[in-house]
Amino acid sequence: MPEKVYVTYNDVHKLCQEAAPKILEEFQPQLIIAIGGGGYVPARILRSFLKRPGSTNIPIQAIGLSLYETLTGAADAEVEEPGTKVTRTQWLDLSALGEMDNLVGKRVLIVDEVDDTRTTLEYAVKELEKDVEVARARLGGAETQFSIFVLHNKDKTKKGTLPHNMVEQGRYLAARTVSDVWICYPWEAVDIDEHDKHAQEQNADGRKLNGDA
Amino acid sequence: MPEKVYVTYNDVHKLCQEAAPKILEEFQPQLIIAIGGGGYVPARILRSFLKRPGSTNIPIQAIGLSLYETLTGAADAEVEEPGTKVTRTQWLDLSALGEMDNLVGKRVLIVDEVDDTRTTLEYAVKELEKDVEVARARLGGAETQFSIFVLHNKDKTKKGTLPHNMVEQGRYLAARTVSDVWICYPWEAVDIDEHDKHAQEQNADGRKLNGDA
Repeated sequence: MPEKVYVTYNDVHKLCQEAAPKILEEFQPQLIIAIGGGGYVPARILRSFLKRPGSTNIPIQAIGLSLYETLTGAADAEVEEPGTKVTRTQWLDLSALGEMDNLVGKRVLIVDEVDDTRTTLEYAVKELEKDVEVARARLGGAETQFSIFVLHNKDKTKKGTLPHNMVEQGRYLAARTVSDVWICYPWEAVDIDEHDKHAQEQNADGRKLNGDA
Repeated sequence: MPEKVYVTYNDVHKLCQEAAPKILEEFQPQLIIAIGGGGYVPARILRSFLKRPGSTNIPIQAIGLSLYETLTGAADAEVEEPGTKVTRTQWLDLSALGEMDNLVGKRVLIVDEVDDTRTTLEYAVKELEKDVEVARARLGGAETQFSIFVLHNKDKTKKGTLPHNMVEQGRYLAARTVSDVWICYPWEAVDIDEHDKHAQEQNADGRKLNGDA
């Protein structure tokens, strides 16, 4: 059983806040794509910090991806085993985006909470690129530039590979890189006060990996 | 200038937690539709509390609706005036849903953070119903049952009207009903510690309207 690390909502908020200037400077996104459900919260927070005075908000599109879940164990103590097969539960809304046309030549920031095995991120980038290329073949125009933001990257052997050496090319930003711990996000907490207490204890122990740098 | 009321992330978390049993009992949703961006955070939290042991998560689909924003005032002190024209920035993904077919006969919970003028909610329900009816006319089947969850309902004259007397018929749940105050949600806070401090002061004053009932 890996070590559990507790992340509070305010930690998540501050990680997004801290990352925003770098994202604005380096990625300059024109559209956020949130990978649901884990990307919903950071994407919404990030939008606040990416808003420039006098401009409208950067639009968010949500996509739903889930690794095939295997439920094991007793009913009240089940564990979701990370799988390798990605299924789409929601994809981009082609009508609002004009059948991918509006993505052509844009700078798009993909947001998720954690980069664990990288399987989901690989799927997201590759499938989005595929769809955009179809539109670009028809329309012409510049290439779409994808970048990635996650709250936490787990430092481990990845099953997925990002195209174009995105990590090495600086198209990838993780607010924190952590070891292969069990990250407890607040939106999954059954008792949020207890959750925060755990986080505080870890902080006091110097084991904290979030929040104030 | 209306009174400002500060809502913390943990308040939002607890409002969702508190509402979940009632939602499970009365609405029994099979699909969550989150109205973005404000619905993202409560929808994601709610999903945790709506999960039943041994079952998979209730899927979330996100739609993006925004009231036309008019930006006024100085660059660093702008105010978004609530408008009356709703624009779609994202709609349901027809491919993953099987062209609305999968919505026919389902129980669908629409989630947003606040019911202010009710304009957005009216638009969401009516447009969703319209699309579902097209599918149902082709396929047959039972009617789709929509219900609504919001964190806060503002007790004021509404511009929008929900069909089928949803409010009176018990298809509408607001975790809290508040007066026409300015609700400060945490995901918009520039300084989250300051934000929490304001919330705590309000709590001490007995002016708090969230969190523990």
